[in-house]
Amino acid sequence: MSDTHSTGPLKGLTILDLSRVLAGPYCTMVLADLGARVIKIETPKGGDDSRSIGPFVGSESAYFASINRGKQSLALDLKADADRAIFEALLARADVLVENYRPGVMARLGYGWERLHAEHPRLIYAAASGFGQTGPEAHKAAYDMVVQAMGGIMSVTGHPGGPPTRVGTSIGDITAGLFTTIGILAALRHRSETGEGQFVDVAMLDGQIAILENAVARTTTTGVAPGPLGARHPSITPFAAYQCQDAPLVIAAGNDGLWASLLDALGLTGLKTNPRFATNALRTEAADEIATLLEAALAAHPVAHWLVVLEKAGVPCGPLHDVKQALAHPQVKARNMLIDTELPDGTPLKAAGNPVKLSAHPDPATRPRAPRLDEHRETILKELGL
Amino acid sequence: MSDTHSTGPLKGLTILDLSRVLAGPYCTMVLADLGARVIKIETPKGGDDSRSIGPFVGSESAYFASINRGKQSLALDLKADADRAIFEALLARADVLVENYRPGVMARLGYGWERLHAEHPRLIYAAASGFGQTGPEAHKAAYDMVVQAMGGIMSVTGHPGGPPTRVGTSIGDITAGLFTTIGILAALRHRSETGEGQFVDVAMLDGQIAILENAVARTTTTGVAPGPLGARHPSITPFAAYQCQDAPLVIAAGNDGLWASLLDALGLTGLKTNPRFATNALRTEAADEIATLLEAALAAHPVAHWLVVLEKAGVPCGPLHDVKQALAHPQVKARNMLIDTELPDGTPLKAAGNPVKLSAHPDPATRPRAPRLDEHRETILKELGL
Repeated sequence: MSDTHSTGPLKGLTILDLSRVLAGPYCTMVLADLGARVIKIETPKGGDDSRSIGPFVGSESAYFASINRGKQSLALDLKADADRAIFEALLARADVLVENYRPGVMARLGYGWERLHAEHPRLIYAAASGFGQTGPEAHKAAYDMVVQAMGGIMSVTGHPGGPPTRVGTSIGDITAGLFTTIGILAALRHRSETGEGQFVDVAMLDGQIAILENAVARTTTTGVAPGPLGARHPSITPFAAYQCQDAPLVIAAGNDGLWASLLDALGLTGLKTNPRFATNALRTEAADEIATLLEAALAAHPVAHWLVVLEKAGVPCGPLHDVKQALAHPQVKARNMLIDTELPDGTPLKAAGNPVKLSAHPDPATRPRAPRLDEHRETILKELGL
Repeated sequence: MSDTHSTGPLKGLTILDLSRVLAGPYCTMVLADLGARVIKIETPKGGDDSRSIGPFVGSESAYFASINRGKQSLALDLKADADRAIFEALLARADVLVENYRPGVMARLGYGWERLHAEHPRLIYAAASGFGQTGPEAHKAAYDMVVQAMGGIMSVTGHPGGPPTRVGTSIGDITAGLFTTIGILAALRHRSETGEGQFVDVAMLDGQIAILENAVARTTTTGVAPGPLGARHPSITPFAAYQCQDAPLVIAAGNDGLWASLLDALGLTGLKTNPRFATNALRTEAADEIATLLEAALAAHPVAHWLVVLEKAGVPCGPLHDVKQALAHPQVKARNMLIDTELPDGTPLKAAGNPVKLSAHPDPATRPRAPRLDEHRETILKELGL
């Protein structure tokens, strides 16, 4: 099944997408942005749950429209014979099937991996689930914050002694979506070598473990779990938000050279020879003392002043933006990271762009809109000869 | 250049990795975990900066060892003629070059994309940088927390009125690493169709915009930037950490059916017909009131009790784990998400596993250790016939 409009590296690939809400749809959004054709199979009763999750513009979900841009929609009841025949005709033509049901749902529908692999040996089947297809809790349902809580990232986010803090976006879903994308692309590479499709099993909880980064090493080497650290890096100093005259500024001096440059820029040259601050490890032990010393100097001027001074000194730093400031930033605009799309009813909508910039493919500033429920039924049935 | 030990879907691919610390090395860790051969080119003066970032076991960085497992190391001074000749011999045999220098550094070394593409038309060149290769701030350096601050995620993480809060892991680097991995795999697919290599340009700041999720739609549709929300979802209710008798429990009732099941399980059946809570949108407006009602019921029992009751009711929920609890969880163990590896000196080390589980490839519970600096010089030079 071809898509003549696509110009991306995944042009020519057809993804059958049974997924709902976020982890699966985020994966297929990335695939669609890279040129794959995504056919979104939705339940006839209202479609994807995220069509009823805000923010809304009129009766349309801008949330749904952002994540499902550039996809086609076909409403199918997979328990009805006529619709099953359509789904099976699509399976025979698809490269990849994506779903994020609880494990077991597809097998109960008669579409388990074993059957599909036997009938369609080239098909890649990707399942993103809360806990994965194996293990004692495979059967449980999960949503983003459940895996943020169980996976440990909430325990290192927030302030010491403070209340539990969620990462402010659905990092549990998004991470799973990205790893599912990677699994699909790796499986496509294997298929191009061998002709063989395979099953890609990604768990949201596993993704949370994979992004814990040095919190894992800190825990496994000491036996002690790290706590939250507010707004500083756990093992690099100075690497934190420091208060200037008017607002905080993030300064990230990640090595000895940058530490020296920072001290010069702040007029704290005398600290350069202090043996207690000679290495990153020593500076991290003295992180509070260093914050006090830096903030005493930073208090003399506002953030705007220090941005200029520290940039000249080559010290990485940046202001704390709210989302409106972030989206309006000249670099974000220059990188085409806020693209134009539409709601299903045609109302203009701005959404986040695709961060994978490729020299052999355009990065359109306008992306096709998300579909109305069942919008592409006629087109698709015609292609299938049904 | 072949690697007879690999069993993953990327077997047979050779990645030349000039990257340091985290965004690039995280990308090449994922590629190595999936079977690619990664040759890490390090500066002879101490190698990758992350060799001196904690936590340490003796003199070895467990941080470096976790992220660089399964890679080979070759120390090269790219300003010295003899070493440049080795690098150029490797370029002729590599599939992918990965670097995370500031834009311009590779061109000044004589290895800019135009030259490399002309000489090695099949080579894929992936650059992960702070701000990307284009735009007014392309030349600036960035570290993780700088892009967390500028990209807006810190503005939606934390508690209303509270101090700035960093996401507790280096999500700025890790997200860029994942999008770089996706870009490389998409470019490999394009190369398998056309024979043509290309340039993959990923910015850490762009990655932060891409994971803002519905904060973008909320901002662009209302003109108002959202603030931090503590430990609840901005547009789904109930979806938060709620206090039980002994500790908080995350409950995620993402649709009307789960809301009804939750009320039944808590003995709050009377609320099911309350029209003010009839839809998710109405419940989100009444999020504080709903928290009060739920916590009044939850206070009667500890988390362990409610986990059983809510699981039986099919309501997604989970306890708040610290990292030690997360790594010890039976599901995490069953999924092989804590693997065995070693420090460069052979000391055993536990590290996070690979969340991409594939039916056609094993998911080894033991992963080869990270290299000592320049450990593979002899092997590699011999292969090159130098």
